[in-house]
Amino acid sequence: MTNKRKVAILGATGAVGQRYIQLLQGHPWFEISVLAASERSAGKKYKDAANWLMETELPKEIAEMPVANIDVVSCEKTGDFDLVFTSLPGDLAGPVEAEFASLYPVFSKASAHRMEKDVPLIIPEVNADHVELVKVQQQRRGWKGFISTDPNCSTIQMAITLKPLMQFGLRQVVVTTMQALSGAGYPGVASLDIIDNVVPFISGEEEKMETEALKILGTFENGAIKNADFKLSASCNRVNVKDGHLESIFVKLDQDPSIEQIEAAFEDFRGAPQLLKLPSAPAQPIVVRHEKNRPQPRYDRDTGKGQSVVVGRIRKDPIMTFKYMCLGHNTVRGAAGGGILSAELYVANGLA
Amino acid sequence: MTNKRKVAILGATGAVGQRYIQLLQGHPWFEISVLAASERSAGKKYKDAANWLMETELPKEIAEMPVANIDVVSCEKTGDFDLVFTSLPGDLAGPVEAEFASLYPVFSKASAHRMEKDVPLIIPEVNADHVELVKVQQQRRGWKGFISTDPNCSTIQMAITLKPLMQFGLRQVVVTTMQALSGAGYPGVASLDIIDNVVPFISGEEEKMETEALKILGTFENGAIKNADFKLSASCNRVNVKDGHLESIFVKLDQDPSIEQIEAAFEDFRGAPQLLKLPSAPAQPIVVRHEKNRPQPRYDRDTGKGQSVVVGRIRKDPIMTFKYMCLGHNTVRGAAGGGILSAELYVANGLA
Amino acid sequence: MTNKRKVAILGATGAVGQRYIQLLQGHPWFEISVLAASERSAGKKYKDAANWLMETELPKEIAEMPVANIDVVSCEKTGDFDLVFTSLPGDLAGPVEAEFASLYPVFSKASAHRMEKDVPLIIPEVNADHVELVKVQQQRRGWKGFISTDPNCSTIQMAITLKPLMQFGLRQVVVTTMQALSGAGYPGVASLDIIDNVVPFISGEEEKMETEALKILGTFENGAIKNADFKLSASCNRVNVKDGHLESIFVKLDQDPSIEQIEAAFEDFRGAPQLLKLPSAPAQPIVVRHEKNRPQPRYDRDTGKGQSVVVGRIRKDPIMTFKYMCLGHNTVRGAAGGGILSAELYVANGLA
Amino acid sequence: MTNKRKVAILGATGAVGQRYIQLLQGHPWFEISVLAASERSAGKKYKDAANWLMETELPKEIAEMPVANIDVVSCEKTGDFDLVFTSLPGDLAGPVEAEFASLYPVFSKASAHRMEKDVPLIIPEVNADHVELVKVQQQRRGWKGFISTDPNCSTIQMAITLKPLMQFGLRQVVVTTMQALSGAGYPGVASLDIIDNVVPFISGEEEKMETEALKILGTFENGAIKNADFKLSASCNRVNVKDGHLESIFVKLDQDPSIEQIEAAFEDFRGAPQLLKLPSAPAQPIVVRHEKNRPQPRYDRDTGKGQSVVVGRIRKDPIMTFKYMCLGHNTVRGAAGGGILSAELYVANGLA
Repeated sequence: MTNKRKVAILGATGAVGQRYIQLLQGHPWFEISVLAASERSAGKKYKDAANWLMETELPKEIAEMPVANIDVVSCEKTGDFDLVFTSLPGDLAGPVEAEFASLYPVFSKASAHRMEKDVPLIIPEVNADHVELVKVQQQRRGWKGFISTDPNCSTIQMAITLKPLMQFGLRQVVVTTMQALSGAGYPGVASLDIIDNVVPFISGEEEKMETEALKILGTFENGAIKNADFKLSASCNRVNVKDGHLESIFVKLDQDPSIEQIEAAFEDFRGAPQLLKLPSAPAQPIVVRHEKNRPQPRYDRDTGKGQSVVVGRIRKDPIMTFKYMCLGHNTVRGAAGGGILSAELYVANGLA
Repeated sequence: MTNKRKVAILGATGAVGQRYIQLLQGHPWFEISVLAASERSAGKKYKDAANWLMETELPKEIAEMPVANIDVVSCEKTGDFDLVFTSLPGDLAGPVEAEFASLYPVFSKASAHRMEKDVPLIIPEVNADHVELVKVQQQRRGWKGFISTDPNCSTIQMAITLKPLMQFGLRQVVVTTMQALSGAGYPGVASLDIIDNVVPFISGEEEKMETEALKILGTFENGAIKNADFKLSASCNRVNVKDGHLESIFVKLDQDPSIEQIEAAFEDFRGAPQLLKLPSAPAQPIVVRHEKNRPQPRYDRDTGKGQSVVVGRIRKDPIMTFKYMCLGHNTVRGAAGGGILSAELYVANGLA
Repeated sequence: MTNKRKVAILGATGAVGQRYIQLLQGHPWFEISVLAASERSAGKKYKDAANWLMETELPKEIAEMPVANIDVVSCEKTGDFDLVFTSLPGDLAGPVEAEFASLYPVFSKASAHRMEKDVPLIIPEVNADHVELVKVQQQRRGWKGFISTDPNCSTIQMAITLKPLMQFGLRQVVVTTMQALSGAGYPGVASLDIIDNVVPFISGEEEKMETEALKILGTFENGAIKNADFKLSASCNRVNVKDGHLESIFVKLDQDPSIEQIEAAFEDFRGAPQLLKLPSAPAQPIVVRHEKNRPQPRYDRDTGKGQSVVVGRIRKDPIMTFKYMCLGHNTVRGAAGGGILSAELYVANGLA
Repeated sequence: MTNKRKVAILGATGAVGQRYIQLLQGHPWFEISVLAASERSAGKKYKDAANWLMETELPKEIAEMPVANIDVVSCEKTGDFDLVFTSLPGDLAGPVEAEFASLYPVFSKASAHRMEKDVPLIIPEVNADHVELVKVQQQRRGWKGFISTDPNCSTIQMAITLKPLMQFGLRQVVVTTMQALSGAGYPGVASLDIIDNVVPFISGEEEKMETEALKILGTFENGAIKNADFKLSASCNRVNVKDGHLESIFVKLDQDPSIEQIEAAFEDFRGAPQLLKLPSAPAQPIVVRHEKNRPQPRYDRDTGKGQSVVVGRIRKDPIMTFKYMCLGHNTVRGAAGGGILSAELYVANGLA
């Protein structure tokens, strides 16, 4: 792969957009060509438009780049690009992404198109074969490009751990989340709302977890996704943690594997990114911790550079089959890192 | 009740002991007569022995009281007392409480004796009839006094909300807790362990929730407790909140009541403390919040002066029957406030 | 005082406006008659317009009150009122307050008019005689009402403690603040900005402290304020605390009083509110703590129902004369509570 | 330097000891040979003795190392070593360090020996020439080894920034600190003490800052340190931040340099570690941030891998000459990282 693909980032000034910029520094396949944001930012230099929130420094060449408006004409004026990453607010994402997708491959972190029948909802380790759905989409919509979507952050880390459990006959999943502040973007959660507190509500989150997981873990047959047939119930909470969603998961299986069998299923799990050696693939998608009090957000969120999901406290359950804790970095694996890995998968498949 | 009962507090310098002192100020039935703690504190004035953690000021007359050692001889030398509140560490509690119980009614916040067959595990609104078990205990052990125990803090608030659900045929309870720092006592959780973090483990907590609830909600028949026959699975976490445990609860019932029926069952629930108008009884044991994002620890923990349990987000569940959030003040209702209410119940029944 | 004065609150939906509502419940002299806010809220019921942030419940009769727009016509249509409390954003406050002040006494928490020559900047314990300046103002501006302003929150608590030091010849004050989140209003500080962090900048705060204190502690002579002639340097920081500004203060005096003399000066200090027994006056404006590690925000902010300033760690200084820590509740004494006390002072003086 | 020096770490299980282990991984000059701790840990494997607190994983070969007792005999039995790093609690450090120093170079993070006349108190960028004092020490005490001490963490970062100000005639320094939790070790600060709070007291800290800075910035003449002759006043606070002490500093100088001159003095400052290209030396000891709200602990503490001090908000002062904010990583530059840099300086000077 001699020439890097040129990338446009829509929503480049937001928290996820910034993470895209950070993670794409030095990427072997992709280079940032266009940064776009809403009208308020368009026309400014990036350093003046964005309130840089990453703990690493804003790269100097990024700082000086102009910000385009989030439409095709404005972006094409600003620079060439081969594919598009979007992290736009929900209400904007729908039409903007469609406009770009008629011409370019669009990798979307927004929820707008996720549940549409001809739009794949991709976690590269879980459902790499679903990428073929974009051919159906292109044909039906008459697009040169396409939209591929990434799931909701709390869904991604859970779904990765559910995949290796499918072999045991997955029946029911009851999950309570403790989600990090960065999941709400910036400025996001007001400090006065979360100091000495937990907020037991995240708008739309439970619905997303309960519907997206079934599509992701479904099968691609005859040009369509057939949902998986287990049931899922979620209860979502915001806690005073910067990064890293922690999930308490109770699972009912058809079979009754031993704890050792479950641990082995987690640890041995590999997917397309590992087989294809994609640049952003973690060596191990799921890491099992054996301490009695792990995973913990601050200690484990950066495992596998934030691309691994970490599980622990795997134990038998008096009601379901077993229970465990699951942690993922919500703005790396759960957002920009997952999006980049998706794009890599399409590139490796010759689709982008 | 013209003369107040004199009270000894064992473990008076600890976090729960301090809460007992705070809540007993101006109590109509009880007055503090003896403060006792471990050898390290014994002999000192209370103000020198305790690191006062309450946000209200240390009462002046308490500050000057001497601290007795936690044995009967030392306490009796220090002052007369009619009954005993204990909040001792687990390893100390067993023999010390037995020594006092041979002579005095002992109301224990320790786990040491909770699961013994002839020891009641009391939540006054839930199982007031279990107090009669102390007569069996006294007869069997030849004691003039007795031990009555209070459940674990995270169990208490949950069990109060499960009681009115029994009428619908309670089958299964799946609960994930987000517990406050004060539940671990003082110094308890190190700040370095909890800043920007959640700790998904509390030693022994899940086992306590899973066993205690069955005894509390059991029936008192023929001089013994018969456990309730539902099943419970718990997953317990420590979050960065000062006071107030929040619980995400999924419940399976035999019947399928409407949300309105469940809310009515919660709101209309009354127990012995309300009927007997006990001094520390909240008007309403369970308060239902109707906002989409409540209950929250910082806003709701002081409901009913910390003696009410607050529920919210009651909604149908795709797997179980319904799910809800449950909040209680862990050091008031979940500890000292619950202990005082228990003692009031025994007094009202002529047993102490 | 048989009939209560009717009060309009401008900016009633904001954090300070809510505190006004909370503190005016059951007030012996004032009753809330009109609630006004910006266009976005006007026309709604208060409960629908405000995101209630107080830990006490929103009073039911307030919840149902309509919200007027912040202009005289709209407020007069909504109800009668005798005086006005304002807590408007800086840019709005200027003209709106002037409009109301032409007809009504206006007690302003905004900075817009604070430094105008004919506008008093009042802390009732410190400069009660400055209230007479409103007569100059009325005459000059031809107003029936007037504007009286309250200082910036971090200035108020400091200035109260500087007043009794004036007798020793106050020369220099060097202060570093650690200010609470609620000082920035709601939503105010983003949680992502303050978790595991301190923000060493608060826009305009240092300038306010450095200029306001000189006016407050100045003398009222010949119809004008003559600034006090000491110097002040401030460095302001935001810390992860809900309520309660903590200040590290170094003071240089002409004289060299002993620590005991300084403590006595603080403890014995009384002002007009105490002499006049104003309803919101704390018994003691300054409370001295003698523990080595106090005052602390969480423990001391509610001293005197949040109207007392708490000092501690008074010690000799190798460079200046002495140093101490100073704590005040920034939304009670530093905002709504201070504003109500000011209004009480004007009423007691027959000026409102 | 072909052969690495072998290192013993005394107090290896503590928070600073862990940081030594972390920072010495892959060090070009040093390799860990002996880990020692108090009796409670001695005899165990390191992984069983230590509660590993670093966010990076405990290195596997370290995990399996045995822990020696903190005496020479026990350490020598466990392995060879050429020099010693200590981070022992104050009461232990005195005699233990002396025992080791009679035979080995000891680099101490404890305060026990800091102020002794023949013991250097080293910050390599500030007073590299003071290392020669160990020759006086060896001669006077008849030791083969020596003790060299590192200053208190809050002193180090401040003193580095004071050094380039000496050229302007440093007269007075008034400093208020906001110090991180990790400065108190582990378990250190109880979470219940710091949630929603600031603690305005750190035992002994103000005295250390006020005395150590004068020695560090003093001159080495005729075999002795002559203290610098400016004055310093400190007020120390603990805030809810994991790592990174933030300091608000007011400075009085003889001269009146412009802000640009001060910034240049900071930015151009280089010391022995930079000249000698010591392995742990940051390229720039002092980094100046120009944003209006920096430095901030979470964003700036890792500057220069935690070895740079970051300053900002440099501004003229109405009382002193100027004021600024100063940030340093308290367990890297302020502890283990500073200690390793000191040892490197001694090695480069042929003294260890």
